[in-house]
Amino acid sequence: MQVLGIDPGLRNMGWGIVAVDGPRLRHVANGVITPEGTDLGARLVTLYRGLCAVIAAHGPDQAAVEQTFVNKDAVGTLKLGQARGIALLAPAEAGLSVGEYAPNAVKKAVVGVGHAAKDQIAHMVRFQLPGVVLAGPDAADALAIAICHAHHLQGRSLRIKASA
Amino acid sequence: MQVLGIDPGLRNMGWGIVAVDGPRLRHVANGVITPEGTDLGARLVTLYRGLCAVIAAHGPDQAAVEQTFVNKDAVGTLKLGQARGIALLAPAEAGLSVGEYAPNAVKKAVVGVGHAAKDQIAHMVRFQLPGVVLAGPDAADALAIAICHAHHLQGRSLRIKASA
Repeated sequence: MQVLGIDPGLRNMGWGIVAVDGPRLRHVANGVITPEGTDLGARLVTLYRGLCAVIAAHGPDQAAVEQTFVNKDAVGTLKLGQARGIALLAPAEAGLSVGEYAPNAVKKAVVGVGHAAKDQIAHMVRFQLPGVVLAGPDAADALAIAICHAHHLQGRSLRIKASA
Repeated sequence: MQVLGIDPGLRNMGWGIVAVDGPRLRHVANGVITPEGTDLGARLVTLYRGLCAVIAAHGPDQAAVEQTFVNKDAVGTLKLGQARGIALLAPAEAGLSVGEYAPNAVKKAVVGVGHAAKDQIAHMVRFQLPGVVLAGPDAADALAIAICHAHHLQGRSLRIKASA
């Protein structure tokens, strides 16, 4: 079972894939898609095709995206929404179910507390996925989202085993 | 030359196509794509495939989307952004250039003033596209955006002719 985590952004779309092997997690791949130019439509196409290529190359079974609650300005929120639309569309188009997690849930799953600094997340991602080479902070966040979803799946399957 | 106008929304994605024939405009088609269910990814897929089908069926040459400046809450803005990402992606994926117009510019192009009520827009769209049957208010808004872009193209070509 492989999980694709996506950290949506118009400038940098982070992605990361972890494999769930019973109680263990294994790093598969991570990266950042960075569109060039100023044309918004063209940037969205680059993000969409990039995510579709990642899905085609690795064939993840499920996806997860951060459920962003925004405290930025309206313009920033609208931009984030546009990137988020692409981040949800690409896996759904490929037939993957897409989990959504609040930022605090992601931090809690990876760091153990709901409020954690960005470099703490990268540190704990490296700890939980030994040997991983991070493509950047957005890729670290994407792997954190994938780890959060993987914990969710493991918890559910453990509960199913316990009640069987 | 055919222009596709899109009025983005997660509940209702309005679309409308007008043909630009020199100084005249002609209605080609209009409609509303309304996804069912509560799964956001599935709703975005319905909107994306719906727009792709419209583009494949009619083969417009250019597209235009309203450049929404938002005064709603952050949650509403994020939702609108997600729909807008799809509205920009679908024509850009098909290789169409996508114009963006501020709401006031659209109203001014269709009604003649920058501040106009929703039913005034539908009234003037019917007036400018005789015989049109509107699929709903979102389709009327989409045709208004297409008319705005068409006026922009006509103005430019008239200016080119005048300076030739």
